[in-house]
Amino acid sequence: MRMAELSNESGVPAATIRYYLREGLVPAGEHTSPNQARYTSSHVRRLKLIRALLDVGGLSISEVRDVVVAIDTNTPTLDLLDVAHTNLIAPKGDVDDQDRAWALALLEHVAQRVGWTIVPDDKSTQALVGLLSTFRAIGHSAMLNDLEYYAELAAKAAERDVAALQTPDSPDSVVERAIVGTVLGDALFSALRHLAQQNEAKKRYG
Amino acid sequence: MRMAELSNESGVPAATIRYYLREGLVPAGEHTSPNQARYTSSHVRRLKLIRALLDVGGLSISEVRDVVVAIDTNTPTLDLLDVAHTNLIAPKGDVDDQDRAWALALLEHVAQRVGWTIVPDDKSTQALVGLLSTFRAIGHSAMLNDLEYYAELAAKAAERDVAALQTPDSPDSVVERAIVGTVLGDALFSALRHLAQQNEAKKRYG
Repeated sequence: MRMAELSNESGVPAATIRYYLREGLVPAGEHTSPNQARYTSSHVRRLKLIRALLDVGGLSISEVRDVVVAIDTNTPTLDLLDVAHTNLIAPKGDVDDQDRAWALALLEHVAQRVGWTIVPDDKSTQALVGLLSTFRAIGHSAMLNDLEYYAELAAKAAERDVAALQTPDSPDSVVERAIVGTVLGDALFSALRHLAQQNEAKKRYG
Repeated sequence: MRMAELSNESGVPAATIRYYLREGLVPAGEHTSPNQARYTSSHVRRLKLIRALLDVGGLSISEVRDVVVAIDTNTPTLDLLDVAHTNLIAPKGDVDDQDRAWALALLEHVAQRVGWTIVPDDKSTQALVGLLSTFRAIGHSAMLNDLEYYAELAAKAAERDVAALQTPDSPDSVVERAIVGTVLGDALFSALRHLAQQNEAKKRYG
């Protein structure tokens, strides 16, 4: 298909598609003349994936590029999780040293209870330490009483998440499924939890 | 305390605090002269809360204002959930009618299994329909095979979330706890899930 049809099929304006092509987010089409290229349905899917990563995942263009490189180079499963976790929102600003030590100790306690190993430099650990410190800084550390319970639920979710990567019935790369599962999966769980909260609140206060 | 100390204690620049004061996000200090006001530790906490909502929750200034108004007016628990859910990330762009119908049918099926009532106009329903449609549009609807399982985990999380609102040992309003629990709680669960995924992946592919 030509650029006009690609834009129409994907819902992405042609000027934006050209920008993604220049930035290397979308592979070049097959050139049929110096000024014309032909695109396929795989370009449509790639464009929809990019829009989902930008809009739902809140990733930056350069983070999307890392993700796309990981997909195209078939990065091994364990390494790619660090790329997939790029959208973790860590609180900005400096964390007080005392708060940080408190948060890391709390996290280590919970990790031991659920059988996790903590790697202090990992993005997920950094994000958790930042979040736990923030709960404390704004005077809501009592809300962390159920942290171990939530960690157990997270472990159950992660078991399914990682098992689903091995499903053999899909033509997509494991890498692409890991990225989509993480970025859209986080948003999906939040939305399910909100729907559940509304139903639970109605039951109690309704 | 004076503005300089308030800025120092909260880590928020004085110019930014003045902007929040003009926008009504922070209550005015007690005026000691036409050009000077005195602030308290409740101003420090409010500023840290605002930073958490902006940075972690990704809320806009006008969404933070809605949240702050809900806190200050002690909005009833059931109504405030809609305010708290303001940070749900729904995919932008139009959802195809056919995809929307498919997503709503899938959601209704799952809701029936876990005993939820769906209100089509609610933010969480809109976000879910958008997300489920996106999974389908990018060719990953097979990843939704476990949707009911995730819904069950979300229901377990929500039970604790709503029960925690009633904890009587905190001087904060129920409203503030609902907001913090939702905005920071979503980010916290995502980070716990990522840590769990890394541990699960190491176990399998280690």
